[in-house]
Amino acid sequence: MSEAAKTLEGWYCLHDFRAINWEKWKLLSTEEQEQITSEFVSILKKWENAEKRKAGSHALYSIVGQKADIMIMILRPTMEEVNEVENAFNKSRFAEYTIPTYSYVSVVELSNYLPSNVDPNEDPEIQARLKPILPKAQHICFYPMNKRREGNDNWYMLSMDERRSLMRSHGMIGRGYAGKVKQIITGSVGFDDWEWGVTLFSDDVLQFKKLIYEMRFDEVSARYGDFGSFFVGNILLKESLPSYLHV
Amino acid sequence: MSEAAKTLEGWYCLHDFRAINWEKWKLLSTEEQEQITSEFVSILKKWENAEKRKAGSHALYSIVGQKADIMIMILRPTMEEVNEVENAFNKSRFAEYTIPTYSYVSVVELSNYLPSNVDPNEDPEIQARLKPILPKAQHICFYPMNKRREGNDNWYMLSMDERRSLMRSHGMIGRGYAGKVKQIITGSVGFDDWEWGVTLFSDDVLQFKKLIYEMRFDEVSARYGDFGSFFVGNILLKESLPSYLHV
Amino acid sequence: MSEAAKTLEGWYCLHDFRAINWEKWKLLSTEEQEQITSEFVSILKKWENAEKRKAGSHALYSIVGQKADIMIMILRPTMEEVNEVENAFNKSRFAEYTIPTYSYVSVVELSNYLPSNVDPNEDPEIQARLKPILPKAQHICFYPMNKRREGNDNWYMLSMDERRSLMRSHGMIGRGYAGKVKQIITGSVGFDDWEWGVTLFSDDVLQFKKLIYEMRFDEVSARYGDFGSFFVGNILLKESLPSYLHV
Amino acid sequence: MSEAAKTLEGWYCLHDFRAINWEKWKLLSTEEQEQITSEFVSILKKWENAEKRKAGSHALYSIVGQKADIMIMILRPTMEEVNEVENAFNKSRFAEYTIPTYSYVSVVELSNYLPSNVDPNEDPEIQARLKPILPKAQHICFYPMNKRREGNDNWYMLSMDERRSLMRSHGMIGRGYAGKVKQIITGSVGFDDWEWGVTLFSDDVLQFKKLIYEMRFDEVSARYGDFGSFFVGNILLKESLPSYLHV
Amino acid sequence: MSEAAKTLEGWYCLHDFRAINWEKWKLLSTEEQEQITSEFVSILKKWENAEKRKAGSHALYSIVGQKADIMIMILRPTMEEVNEVENAFNKSRFAEYTIPTYSYVSVVELSNYLPSNVDPNEDPEIQARLKPILPKAQHICFYPMNKRREGNDNWYMLSMDERRSLMRSHGMIGRGYAGKVKQIITGSVGFDDWEWGVTLFSDDVLQFKKLIYEMRFDEVSARYGDFGSFFVGNILLKESLPSYLHV
Repeated sequence: MSEAAKTLEGWYCLHDFRAINWEKWKLLSTEEQEQITSEFVSILKKWENAEKRKAGSHALYSIVGQKADIMIMILRPTMEEVNEVENAFNKSRFAEYTIPTYSYVSVVELSNYLPSNVDPNEDPEIQARLKPILPKAQHICFYPMNKRREGNDNWYMLSMDERRSLMRSHGMIGRGYAGKVKQIITGSVGFDDWEWGVTLFSDDVLQFKKLIYEMRFDEVSARYGDFGSFFVGNILLKESLPSYLHV
Repeated sequence: MSEAAKTLEGWYCLHDFRAINWEKWKLLSTEEQEQITSEFVSILKKWENAEKRKAGSHALYSIVGQKADIMIMILRPTMEEVNEVENAFNKSRFAEYTIPTYSYVSVVELSNYLPSNVDPNEDPEIQARLKPILPKAQHICFYPMNKRREGNDNWYMLSMDERRSLMRSHGMIGRGYAGKVKQIITGSVGFDDWEWGVTLFSDDVLQFKKLIYEMRFDEVSARYGDFGSFFVGNILLKESLPSYLHV
Repeated sequence: MSEAAKTLEGWYCLHDFRAINWEKWKLLSTEEQEQITSEFVSILKKWENAEKRKAGSHALYSIVGQKADIMIMILRPTMEEVNEVENAFNKSRFAEYTIPTYSYVSVVELSNYLPSNVDPNEDPEIQARLKPILPKAQHICFYPMNKRREGNDNWYMLSMDERRSLMRSHGMIGRGYAGKVKQIITGSVGFDDWEWGVTLFSDDVLQFKKLIYEMRFDEVSARYGDFGSFFVGNILLKESLPSYLHV
Repeated sequence: MSEAAKTLEGWYCLHDFRAINWEKWKLLSTEEQEQITSEFVSILKKWENAEKRKAGSHALYSIVGQKADIMIMILRPTMEEVNEVENAFNKSRFAEYTIPTYSYVSVVELSNYLPSNVDPNEDPEIQARLKPILPKAQHICFYPMNKRREGNDNWYMLSMDERRSLMRSHGMIGRGYAGKVKQIITGSVGFDDWEWGVTLFSDDVLQFKKLIYEMRFDEVSARYGDFGSFFVGNILLKESLPSYLHV
Repeated sequence: MSEAAKTLEGWYCLHDFRAINWEKWKLLSTEEQEQITSEFVSILKKWENAEKRKAGSHALYSIVGQKADIMIMILRPTMEEVNEVENAFNKSRFAEYTIPTYSYVSVVELSNYLPSNVDPNEDPEIQARLKPILPKAQHICFYPMNKRREGNDNWYMLSMDERRSLMRSHGMIGRGYAGKVKQIITGSVGFDDWEWGVTLFSDDVLQFKKLIYEMRFDEVSARYGDFGSFFVGNILLKESLPSYLHV
């Protein structure tokens, strides 16, 4: 048996994708629309308070294409709190005008493929990466992925050394995008259908394509990467919600 | 032909996943909501009585993400009783506010890959494992799986000795989680679309990820494991149902 | 080109799986429910008359899990008659309270892998197997399957001798279950998405699992078997319908 | 690069599968049902007129199993005309009582794997095959298919000579069914999700199974054939429509 | 690691496929239908103004078969503008009579496999290809695709030289269709589920089939091409909308 990678875990995470039922929304009077929008804004303010207290973080994006209209990403210290946020949203009036289209359950993860000789619990940088405050970037990109286990392309049968060496070269590509793309890896083994979720943030949406395409020529992706659906979106600020929902 | 593993079977099992139709639920008056919640609590009490009589066991969990809102796991001595419990639930008023999203039919199974020279019918420990009272753990994890039959990675073409040796090393990983994760294997060959269901219980949700990820580097999973959807959830006690359903 | 197996065909077959819309059913008055149940019982009686006249056979089972609530299996001498039974059921009032979830179209089939030197049209045993009266067994198991055609595991590239030899050993396992499990093979090449349907009957539901699991270690299944969904159920007698449908 | 097969194309083709919403149909008064049936019969008469003018052809079949209740097959000289027929049907009253379940867009195709030294535009037999009047056979069978491109089983990497030789032996099997099964191949590269549609007509439904099963042992199917869903049905004559739709 | 291809990107793109809910449409009075048609025509005029200002382009086609009734293709300079056009359409009255069936998010892309020694930002021809005004061709064909990464057929493990040489021969086939088929490649790595979208325009719908079929025998497609769904359609001019929507 190959040595398993050691991982560090931080906040639990839910990516929640919803389509908006515009026809139903338009049946409401302007007044009702405004009330429901206000109620949703109040929920966002509660989440902002949690973020200020370092008790979690969140993001709201408008998704392009029919896969969803909006995506809510929620980070919380426990799986119970993630579930509570989800259930509270589901009970809200705004949720009645949305249709669930996809979701992903995971936990922020750092792995030991890159050398490290510090105590992660003492290292403020590592702690900040495990409990990240999500950036207010213009764009988001999300996709789930697996490491492949097929015939001769079986990641989990490689030795730790082989994997570490492959991941190092993979990481070099990522580093070329430092300052342009911020990446948050969440692990989902045992929590959802793929092994990892990848969430990318950037103010230049083209950088997602450049980064992922360049990585695809790297052996880690070329031979060992299996990818799920890709979602891309534009930031939806609380302040823009009224105009976003205005019909 | 390779020698087939001998298996022991116990109680029959249904995992029943449901989304809650919150919008429809909210159309009810508070009084009606309370009546329906009471009716569901009565059903849970009936199941508790069955559990006290050693005539079965059950679990109720709140599932995280859009795959389901709740999951009911039911164990009964016969397939007919499982079906009766299912049909009775389907006829209940609470069921009208739920939408079936996934289910799994199986039977508790122990296999002979680990040596055994006792009569299982006489062994109280084995009997307890075949007819298990489900623990009230904080978290549950469920996923179905197959042993792979693809090209050179064909579990069923291995000799009994090879399989026993692989399973022994696999079991060693599991033993490292003793006290942290309780595992119930149910067999579903002939009953549902995958060969086994794996149900894990733990008070620490992170242990599911740690255990399954560590196992993935073991040859049994790396080369021979094919996995279905993963579901994760938090315990939903009968006492918490009113607040869970309160809107 | 390999020599094709010769096959004998008998009655045409439809497996028709339905979920019951319990909520809609409950909106009916008890009187209406009784009328519709009676109408469905009349249909069953018509089918029983056909069975008495040796003009077909049928079975009705309650399916466990969310894949379906009931399954109707219909055998008739022609494809037109199968279609007529199906359409008549679809036009019945009971059908309004069911939701189609899966179906399978096939024809009872015997193959020549086992030696035979009799004229099948003259052999009453073979005729009885081609036009079988379905047993009133406590349990049913249904699944569709293909013979695999992948890389080195290509059933259709094997010689007739290889296939015959493999099927003989496969048949030996089946014979070990004689008296415990009755098997009806229906062929569906050209009729539905898989090559065969397998329908098993037994008074002991566990025998389905034992039989299929044991066969999976045989090369015919291990290297050459691809399987679809598995359905398992309990017999639903005409006499039990009123209580089954009582709410 | 291997030499591409030359193809001849004729009429454009739409296979349009629909389930009938019987419950909704039954809500109509007998009078309304008769009006809508008449309207549908008028559409069929229009199509018959087109057929008489050699401006296309069509077929209407009752499909067995839950995949569809009826299938309309339409042939027209241009893609625009196919689309017009489709849209006109969609706007008809009868269409309101049907639910689309599958469709296939293609064009009648003849390929040059079999030697030919005539000018196809001058050859009346070839012209008749490219613009076929569909037979009024008792039964229809439809399935889409690809030529496989997987590892060592890659049809498109074979030389023209290899492909021609394989297709010749494949065609020999088909010729054995001359007079029993009529086959129409439609090409769908660029038009729909598979490369070809195969439509078979026969007065003996069993011949579909015999033909396709025998072909499966031929290398063209065994190694190079990938198949989609199979649909089988019984002819639904205009004259039988009133009784088919009578409830 | 293989050298990644360099790419140039232009306008962002949304392909938006919709079925029309004809039954619901027919419930409207003629007057309402005309109002809603007018409103949709106004939206099309806004898009035409954007096209005149070189601020984007668009196309509207009637799709053949059940996959969709219409397809809107939108090009805009930014992902935000694409999203705005999408949301504005979703809020329109016409959208209430459509059902989303598929969409694709991408960006116009040119790659460096063909030699180039000019500054793309200065080259008006390249700029016109990156920001294309869509032709008013009679027919459209759309499909998404990946370069394969399976066993020995792994595009991303080939050297830049191998890929360039393969793409050159692939491009030769395309050049044989110059004047007959116009092709727009859009890249979707990071934006949608496949790596590229291919949109073809032609006044002769048969040329789509001829081109794609010929290419399939080329190694780039034969060994390295994986294809998604294919959609084909006929142009739907603004002027034809009233008759298209007339019932």
